[in-house]
Amino acid sequence: MVPPPLSYGVVLFPGFEVLDIAGPLECLNMLAHRPEGAHLTLSILGRSIDAAHPDEPRLVTPCAEPSSPSQPGFAIHSKQLYQPTHTFHNAPPIDVLLIPGGRGTRTLDRLDEEVAFVKRVYPSLHYVLTICTGVAIAASAGILDGHRVTGNKAIWNLLTPTAPRSYWVAKARWVVSANIWTSSGVSAGTDAMLALLACIYPQHSHPDLIQGVVNGMEYNQILSADDDPFAAVFGAEDVPPRA
Amino acid sequence: MVPPPLSYGVVLFPGFEVLDIAGPLECLNMLAHRPEGAHLTLSILGRSIDAAHPDEPRLVTPCAEPSSPSQPGFAIHSKQLYQPTHTFHNAPPIDVLLIPGGRGTRTLDRLDEEVAFVKRVYPSLHYVLTICTGVAIAASAGILDGHRVTGNKAIWNLLTPTAPRSYWVAKARWVVSANIWTSSGVSAGTDAMLALLACIYPQHSHPDLIQGVVNGMEYNQILSADDDPFAAVFGAEDVPPRA
Repeated sequence: MVPPPLSYGVVLFPGFEVLDIAGPLECLNMLAHRPEGAHLTLSILGRSIDAAHPDEPRLVTPCAEPSSPSQPGFAIHSKQLYQPTHTFHNAPPIDVLLIPGGRGTRTLDRLDEEVAFVKRVYPSLHYVLTICTGVAIAASAGILDGHRVTGNKAIWNLLTPTAPRSYWVAKARWVVSANIWTSSGVSAGTDAMLALLACIYPQHSHPDLIQGVVNGMEYNQILSADDDPFAAVFGAEDVPPRA
Repeated sequence: MVPPPLSYGVVLFPGFEVLDIAGPLECLNMLAHRPEGAHLTLSILGRSIDAAHPDEPRLVTPCAEPSSPSQPGFAIHSKQLYQPTHTFHNAPPIDVLLIPGGRGTRTLDRLDEEVAFVKRVYPSLHYVLTICTGVAIAASAGILDGHRVTGNKAIWNLLTPTAPRSYWVAKARWVVSANIWTSSGVSAGTDAMLALLACIYPQHSHPDLIQGVVNGMEYNQILSADDDPFAAVFGAEDVPPRA
């Protein structure tokens, strides 16, 4: 039996979406309170350790720019910080890497440090899970070539060109392709995380573990990867590889 | 037609649960990006404005105490900060107050400032919404007497004594009693928030607004207040008023 991965990491960046990562981290948190999760570690990985320093790039949610009138957002978002535990340069070995999305992914050229980190660590990962538009970071790192992937349905047509060598699956809450897990928009990350944990801790050897996590969160779980009404809502269609 | 409330506030405290509030705030964030939400404001209310100051009470999630071996949690939680925009003393007028839960509510005697604030502002609120064990803060403020309420099912028997003059409804995703909304554990707060927004922005006058919020979050919404499997999971039963 393969021992479960112990070291989880999250890539954060300017303009990440809080709920993309709050749900998956709640799953891990619930797991960490059980005997099976007692030895898990979680590292928050960012460009700078001092996310709160006013002269450093702040790890804020997408709505931090009050100067953008089309995206009013809330004042809170400029105050809402997740402080990294490590930088990309002193990160510990990671087994499972989570990559949230958010408005910051719309200017991918500014995320060169994040993309380079994903590219560098991917060969040593057990699993990678992208949430929402986090798939664009993995795409830019070149790790999605030849894989089936999915992402946020609301901006599907902006997202699919980021990985022209991948098959984009529209009607999917999440997609698994080898060790690459990609999930649809925002809330879908929680279902994908639970499915990934169910893969890591299978029912036959860890009975009721994942259901215990779900019960503790009182979460209305989606169990099937293809249970996705939002592709139809947004008119998203499959996009085969173009290169 | 009653104009919708514009000023939202969140009470944070040492040991709040991130996902309790991340879901409801994502709903508000999505709403704020639409024309109907353009004038909303959100205030984060805490004891101190400087949540990151090492000598101040930190606004950390429940698992911040690594010294408690039965609750290992993750290192992230001690780094995960939501910084207040106002203190309880300079808070602006609030129309809708959100109160998350979390492990901090288990030592209610340490939350005297939060309880006093809720007691003071309640008469001027349009609505109050508690999430998970946040109901215990509202209970301590005395605002739940005579009301039907609910809360987290996993610790139901610890929660119900906090409001002996309330009728505790076990099988409920959320409960509405006058202008007091109480929701079940963690994830239930998102469904209650969406229901509250649907009450504030009714379908007949704001067609498709709330569905647009749900679609943007790709959220698997629970639409019925009594659609709650977790009361049975945890064996929670109704508790009538005892005083």
